[in-house]
Amino acid sequence: MDLIKNDFIEFIKQRKSVRSFIYQKIDKETILNILEGARWAPSGNNSQPWRVCICIHPTVKRMVAELSKYGGIIEDAYVNLVIFLDLERGYDRVKDLQGIGAFMENILLGVHAKEDIGGVWIGEILNRKEEVNEIFKLPTDKFELMGIIAIGHIDDAREKVRSKERERRSIDEFTEWY
Amino acid sequence: MDLIKNDFIEFIKQRKSVRSFIYQKIDKETILNILEGARWAPSGNNSQPWRVCICIHPTVKRMVAELSKYGGIIEDAYVNLVIFLDLERGYDRVKDLQGIGAFMENILLGVHAKEDIGGVWIGEILNRKEEVNEIFKLPTDKFELMGIIAIGHIDDAREKVRSKERERRSIDEFTEWY
Repeated sequence: MDLIKNDFIEFIKQRKSVRSFIYQKIDKETILNILEGARWAPSGNNSQPWRVCICIHPTVKRMVAELSKYGGIIEDAYVNLVIFLDLERGYDRVKDLQGIGAFMENILLGVHAKEDIGGVWIGEILNRKEEVNEIFKLPTDKFELMGIIAIGHIDDAREKVRSKERERRSIDEFTEWY
Repeated sequence: MDLIKNDFIEFIKQRKSVRSFIYQKIDKETILNILEGARWAPSGNNSQPWRVCICIHPTVKRMVAELSKYGGIIEDAYVNLVIFLDLERGYDRVKDLQGIGAFMENILLGVHAKEDIGGVWIGEILNRKEEVNEIFKLPTDKFELMGIIAIGHIDDAREKVRSKERERRSIDEFTEWY
């Protein structure tokens, strides 16, 4: 555990969005292990307002893919975690959305911790959120789509380095000391 | 880096809110290192809509502390990271708040990676958000308070185990397979 502590900042910096996947199974145990990390995310009042559709079936993936301009990524990914806000568990709009963000970051970091596996957060699908609800038969007054995390085995040959998205503001730019 | 990957889920599970601190300096380098991890958080369109007031000065801490029922924690913490949404950098309310949540989770995990240091996310302060803006002379139409992360050296003798907040729903409860 000491080594992870020393390396943690490097680990978090090396995480990046992966959009090119080879078709190869990801064990159920691996998916559950990623969710095991995610569920320890903090949330206001510990409300844990998340709901996840774990989407592996090709037909269901295709239905979701057709709603996004990133449909190719969704179809190529072995599994898509389709994440909803459980509106009945939530209690404060700002804090609920922050909690979902923490939960999704934990998933991305959990994916990054797995050898040869990568993922990407797809937010653009929110443009068609009601239609996503329909696919999973979730009423829109109870569940609100929050995004999709597409996960698969990294296709190194096709995966490009996108330098722009690797840019971040320097700490000086967004901090002030008091 | 392999070890960190193996241990990551354990690492993330062991993180917990820490509310009892002993007064001991935290190096500027340590604070910067925590923020170095945080700034690699994902955000929609890579907008990075965060602003952080790093609050160490006792007078400023007291002013903030007076606005919260958790003022004792804020005053005891060596440093408080007072986190705002930079409304001009933001572009989509849902995605901005999710990005802030990911950023704050990265801070909490970065704190957890430091030996003997702990922290807690204080959301209750949002009840008095305009007054927090006033302390830091930030206009409310440009910056919106998102929360505070209080950070300090853990006082093991005073720190209680709060079993209720350590509870999480099982994966079965919030997932469905497709």
